Amino acid sequence: MITLAVDCMGGDHGPRVTLVACRQFLDHHPQARLLLVGLEQSLQGFAHERAVIVPASEVVAMDDPVEVALRKKKDSSMRVAILQVRDGAASAAVSAGNTGALMAIARYLLKTLDGIDRPAIATQMPNSRGGATTVLDLGANVDCSAEHLLQFAVMGSALVSALKEGGEPTVGLLNIGEEVIKGSEVIKKAAELLRSAANSGELNFYGNVEGNDIFKGTVDIVVCDGFIGNVALKASEGIASMIVGALKAEFSRHIFTKMAALIAYPVLKAFMQRMDYRRYNGAALLGLRGLVFKSHGSADAMAFEQALIRAYDAARNNLLDRVRIRIAHAAPLLAPADAQPKTGIAATTHR
Amino acid sequence: MITLAVDCMGGDHGPRVTLVACRQFLDHHPQARLLLVGLEQSLQGFAHERAVIVPASEVVAMDDPVEVALRKKKDSSMRVAILQVRDGAASAAVSAGNTGALMAIARYLLKTLDGIDRPAIATQMPNSRGGATTVLDLGANVDCSAEHLLQFAVMGSALVSALKEGGEPTVGLLNIGEEVIKGSEVIKKAAELLRSAANSGELNFYGNVEGNDIFKGTVDIVVCDGFIGNVALKASEGIASMIVGALKAEFSRHIFTKMAALIAYPVLKAFMQRMDYRRYNGAALLGLRGLVFKSHGSADAMAFEQALIRAYDAARNNLLDRVRIRIAHAAPLLAPADAQPKTGIAATTHR
Repeated sequence: MITLAVDCMGGDHGPRVTLVACRQFLDHHPQARLLLVGLEQSLQGFAHERAVIVPASEVVAMDDPVEVALRKKKDSSMRVAILQVRDGAASAAVSAGNTGALMAIARYLLKTLDGIDRPAIATQMPNSRGGATTVLDLGANVDCSAEHLLQFAVMGSALVSALKEGGEPTVGLLNIGEEVIKGSEVIKKAAELLRSAANSGELNFYGNVEGNDIFKGTVDIVVCDGFIGNVALKASEGIASMIVGALKAEFSRHIFTKMAALIAYPVLKAFMQRMDYRRYNGAALLGLRGLVFKSHGSADAMAFEQALIRAYDAARNNLLDRVRIRIAHAAPLLAPADAQPKTGIAATTHR
Repeated sequence: MITLAVDCMGGDHGPRVTLVACRQFLDHHPQARLLLVGLEQSLQGFAHERAVIVPASEVVAMDDPVEVALRKKKDSSMRVAILQVRDGAASAAVSAGNTGALMAIARYLLKTLDGIDRPAIATQMPNSRGGATTVLDLGANVDCSAEHLLQFAVMGSALVSALKEGGEPTVGLLNIGEEVIKGSEVIKKAAELLRSAANSGELNFYGNVEGNDIFKGTVDIVVCDGFIGNVALKASEGIASMIVGALKAEFSRHIFTKMAALIAYPVLKAFMQRMDYRRYNGAALLGLRGLVFKSHGSADAMAFEQALIRAYDAARNNLLDRVRIRIAHAAPLLAPADAQPKTGIAATTHR
């Protein structure tokens, strides 16, 4: 039996979506148990033999500053969910709440693993091979050093090995190609560190990749600075939604095109399912002494269930131990990147 | 009459594509004259009353290192085309050759404008408002300072004002949103500089934007570091080609879906035209004392003609003077960003 702690109050829709997702998830996963964390009056209608309600009296709002979430709301559903992980009551926590707050609280309560300066956010993006490419970091860290990128590569390799069959996953370093300068100094140094790590058998380094390689599926894991990963993710979501919008607009232009849409409906539906971003919902917060998964704030029940499944699979496959073992094994290579750990969270919260 | 110098040898296809594009362009633009630069034997078959062949004995290969292009091939078609601009024989040069070489040669021959440390590459990306968003820089500069980003904003505003009707174009600073850290120190400082420039009436600063805003059309101009712009561009191209590929795959799955495609063909064709990346071909090299446009290396004749049109429009609308006037006007704000100009090109070529 695997137990997950769910922050039922997080996200744009709260219990209206999370509880529906939880029920579907429990129905599909007979070996799962859920701790439903949130305001008692919002959750008391929910009954399931493998679900327990854990009350919390506060809710972190989507626009709460990190300080407020961390210091003022000590009994928030987000915090209580993560406490379940820290105290061993749950194997992983899932929240659709404010990313900054989630990362800060998770880091404060769980602490980072030895050898890791900065936790990272890793997600999957669909690729044209029909699989998914894992990309990290997606915005938890900006101005990453070469050492941070190496840590991300080691953590990403552990994540993908835990969740996917097959050999040692390949790691690509996100760079720019034929243009004037081939990468900054940080990237050049990171490539050297990754090459040494590969030579020591710590990971399977493919080499530099470019933005389009994420979607080509050239490698299993793409490693980059959080600022760049975040821009790449959002730009991709932006163009994808523009393209789908244009397709819909063309098919609803007039009566003939609408008839064509009707005839093409099964094909268009299959296409939309294939391109459905919700299938990839659920980003892992890596590098902490406990498993935490972040759902998109706007997730619907189907998408939130995907995040629960991802957390369940990670717990079932002992992701935490795998990351820990990997990191310990690579320890001699992982020189501390920050003399004083100065991450975004530290900078924000230790003022 | 506007004269353009065309590097007919550049790109993946050379004269086979560029000459076809040149003829189409001349047919569509009775006020244009072309200087066709390249190997005499490759161009001699081309005759047009408004075209003159300018011989060059060498060709910069797509994979030539910048040093080779700049120092060894002194009579390359790329270099001779840019010389036409420097010497006043042409108002703009267009090449589909190696970006790094083009930027280095253009910078060496034309020099940068006063007040500009680093030339930038600006291109248009389609947005869901049916227009285009201009993004710079796209890879000429990595590790940009706040001052560089301000220079890009001023140059981008001049470019868009020259090519588009309407009021003062809006400028967005590419940042990351709700995530843990809202931007790096450089971005925070750049936002301050842009705000002051807006207060002085130098440009119309909208504020921070995110990756998806490029395709939403939130602003006319998105300013970013070249590394980030390059990754965003390539990631977007990557997902766009994945989506179009998936659509084709769904429609060619079996006999029924193929019939559906036949019926939906006019709609799908309209969609493909709308999404056609070739329409946006032609990036401007900004910040030089002369106009240079870069076509995608893989451009076909239709795409290369777009790059010619863009150069023609820029020359016709006095882009160079507009950039110069803007820069001069903003001069008090444009403190030199590099104590010693250290651009990628300088770093690569002055070794």
